Amino acid sequence: MVWVDDSNASLLTDLYELTMAASYHGHHMNYQATFDLFIRQLPDRRNFLVACGVSDALHYLHTVRFEDSALEYLRSLRMFSDDFLSHLASFRFHGEVWAAPEGEIVFENEPLMRVTAPLIEAQIVETFLLNCVAFQTMVASKAARVAIACGDRRFLDMSPRRDHAADAALKAARAAYVGGASGTSNVLAGHFYGIPVSGTMAHSYVMAFEDEERAFRAFVHDFPNNAVLLIDTFDVLEGARRAAGVAADVASEGVIVKGVRIDSGDLAPLSRSVRAILDSAGLEEVEIILSGDLDEYRIKALLDDGVPVSSFGVGTQLGTSADAPTLGAVYKLVADERGPKIKLSTGKATLPGRKQVLRFERDGIFERDEIVLEGEESRGGRPLLVKVMERGERTDADNGLEAARERCRTGLQQLPPTLRRLGAPAQRYRVEPSSRLSGLVEQMSAKTH
Amino acid sequence: MVWVDDSNASLLTDLYELTMAASYHGHHMNYQATFDLFIRQLPDRRNFLVACGVSDALHYLHTVRFEDSALEYLRSLRMFSDDFLSHLASFRFHGEVWAAPEGEIVFENEPLMRVTAPLIEAQIVETFLLNCVAFQTMVASKAARVAIACGDRRFLDMSPRRDHAADAALKAARAAYVGGASGTSNVLAGHFYGIPVSGTMAHSYVMAFEDEERAFRAFVHDFPNNAVLLIDTFDVLEGARRAAGVAADVASEGVIVKGVRIDSGDLAPLSRSVRAILDSAGLEEVEIILSGDLDEYRIKALLDDGVPVSSFGVGTQLGTSADAPTLGAVYKLVADERGPKIKLSTGKATLPGRKQVLRFERDGIFERDEIVLEGEESRGGRPLLVKVMERGERTDADNGLEAARERCRTGLQQLPPTLRRLGAPAQRYRVEPSSRLSGLVEQMSAKTH
Repeated sequence: MVWVDDSNASLLTDLYELTMAASYHGHHMNYQATFDLFIRQLPDRRNFLVACGVSDALHYLHTVRFEDSALEYLRSLRMFSDDFLSHLASFRFHGEVWAAPEGEIVFENEPLMRVTAPLIEAQIVETFLLNCVAFQTMVASKAARVAIACGDRRFLDMSPRRDHAADAALKAARAAYVGGASGTSNVLAGHFYGIPVSGTMAHSYVMAFEDEERAFRAFVHDFPNNAVLLIDTFDVLEGARRAAGVAADVASEGVIVKGVRIDSGDLAPLSRSVRAILDSAGLEEVEIILSGDLDEYRIKALLDDGVPVSSFGVGTQLGTSADAPTLGAVYKLVADERGPKIKLSTGKATLPGRKQVLRFERDGIFERDEIVLEGEESRGGRPLLVKVMERGERTDADNGLEAARERCRTGLQQLPPTLRRLGAPAQRYRVEPSSRLSGLVEQMSAKTH
Repeated sequence: MVWVDDSNASLLTDLYELTMAASYHGHHMNYQATFDLFIRQLPDRRNFLVACGVSDALHYLHTVRFEDSALEYLRSLRMFSDDFLSHLASFRFHGEVWAAPEGEIVFENEPLMRVTAPLIEAQIVETFLLNCVAFQTMVASKAARVAIACGDRRFLDMSPRRDHAADAALKAARAAYVGGASGTSNVLAGHFYGIPVSGTMAHSYVMAFEDEERAFRAFVHDFPNNAVLLIDTFDVLEGARRAAGVAADVASEGVIVKGVRIDSGDLAPLSRSVRAILDSAGLEEVEIILSGDLDEYRIKALLDDGVPVSSFGVGTQLGTSADAPTLGAVYKLVADERGPKIKLSTGKATLPGRKQVLRFERDGIFERDEIVLEGEESRGGRPLLVKVMERGERTDADNGLEAARERCRTGLQQLPPTLRRLGAPAQRYRVEPSSRLSGLVEQMSAKTH
């Protein structure tokens, strides 16, 4: 089994980045170029996105190297000159990067990152940046929808087993936290990021004992401060009664069972019946937690139905963003030493030039964004892109995960109400190029045709 | 940025695996237990699956350790006793594993892996095994569908930028190769797995030159044996004429342009027009390659429409299995020292006991599978599960990636024709428990209720 890490991430790239770079090198084409990373179109089921992944992207840009074994492999392909391979041996990223901070609400066609660097450097990093930013933005965006559905209830990321391989599980936990999850079941994410971890028992635990009651008693004995009993291994209502019996017994010893979890069946009526069982045993403080293929739609339906629960476990649907499992992130050349560049492929046209995004608010609510050319900042509004790297060195405050999470929480409150709906909005958010930018597009399109 | 690797993969787990393990440890419950890893239900759009990921899973089982920093983090949670943490410090997996070899065609409810180990060991590895096997099986299965659609044409994995983080890109390339891709754009996958790598230029390359023709000439000069020219940056037909002009020029020097790629627009008519342009310039040998959000459905439609192309680049849809981006893989306790175990949760019942899968063929075509109890192998048919680990040591021949790919290729030829359709089959594949296994289910269900 092999792993991606700092020493080999340079090869986590499409081969064409390297063939293009080799050609640029051969033709001494290494002038400054600017690329925009953006999402061409929001998925049908998304009214907004939450920027995420920039922190990892900057780490990559700061550390990317071609080590000896990588160079040896590239040599073995017999496609690259010794001269180019020497160039790669001393490859470093020296560029300038502007980005929307993690947790910022963003929309289609807005640059999430703007990379300006010598052409070869800017080209080689394309694949990794897209892979990194698109996935984390996708999961943070999904998590924000779940957060909206949850309202004042909590939800936990329980996705590790269903995420797309190991790295995705780690990054999904982080992105979900940015988007509003209150914690994760993923222990490694807890270790690396300090995200609160959570979890108690699976069905196999209950089955490993001679009967359900013994399992419950054993667990409460072992985790007196933190026991959530899973009550649906055999029959939910019987499970609830057994859990209530155990909880009442240990209450006399000062031990409080934290909650019960239901992972299958018709969750709304079951949770009401379980609540009644717990309450009639005087266990009003014992929480109910629901899980089992939940997503924002099902959570909203459950809460609309008045389920008496404190939190939700969300796994598969969150970590894979299953209703919109890809984001059409692209990375496009928009300017070089000769000025702005444009691409006109059918349905894939790009906005030329070095750009900024300005956000205009009214009464604290996001009203519209304007994509402007560099130098047009005086048009007002809050610039979304901030400088995060200069000459290859990080200049972002790197104020961390909690700041990103708070930025997202605040941003969600500033969303127009129609965008906070889980369905399609009455009106999509306005994102428009400035008149100067529109003029440039027209002028360049005419010239090219 | 942090990475998962052998030193910390033990923490890539749901917290509940560790709380359960701690409780088992406290209660001296560490008898042998058997867990099945299986897919509960095929996604609607899948008629079969291709097993993949077992190789990585075995590597994990062989190397999993709790290193000092992991133990320190767990201690900081104040949930675990010193005694349990000491146990983890010397934790090793000593179990026996049976698995369907990579590349094997498999179906729902059939164990893909059967893990027998002391309960604590078998429990702790659950999350990672599911994460590893489900993702790779999902992508190999998607790739096999693309292979079926392609028939005698080739297809390449071009998914790295859209895969769910870095590790997924690496594993997707491998799984796609098992499922039938002829190569990948992913350089790291080429390096680690020896998969053929492929790729030439992006739109930004064309745009980096003063005009398209200069870009084409430069690239053909730099890669005389391997040039595929991307012709849709501005206008496909003009691009084709320019490419033909360049190809005809260099032909006199003995340089053969390998192909042209179209990445946007209405691919079927465009590819026919491009073919005509190339042919009329005497460039019959120059191939056409199509890409741009392709999947098995679009490829089938294109080929049904008679597109004159040699291969397809498949990215987003392949690496994320976008039409079925999750597999409901589960890992269930099926036996312990007291005998077979059963779980009866609504809609989530399990098949008890240590099991094997037998495949019956008729005239070389898969006819049906039977899930049997250990000891029933004499019922005939080919046993799908083979022993791949004993006392924690790998016993699989580890005959590698090419063997897995060949196994898949042969398996696809043995599929009943109705299952090779991209749509729902006239009849689903028969997977049935043996009468002895059915009897055991009935008997245990009655007893539990």
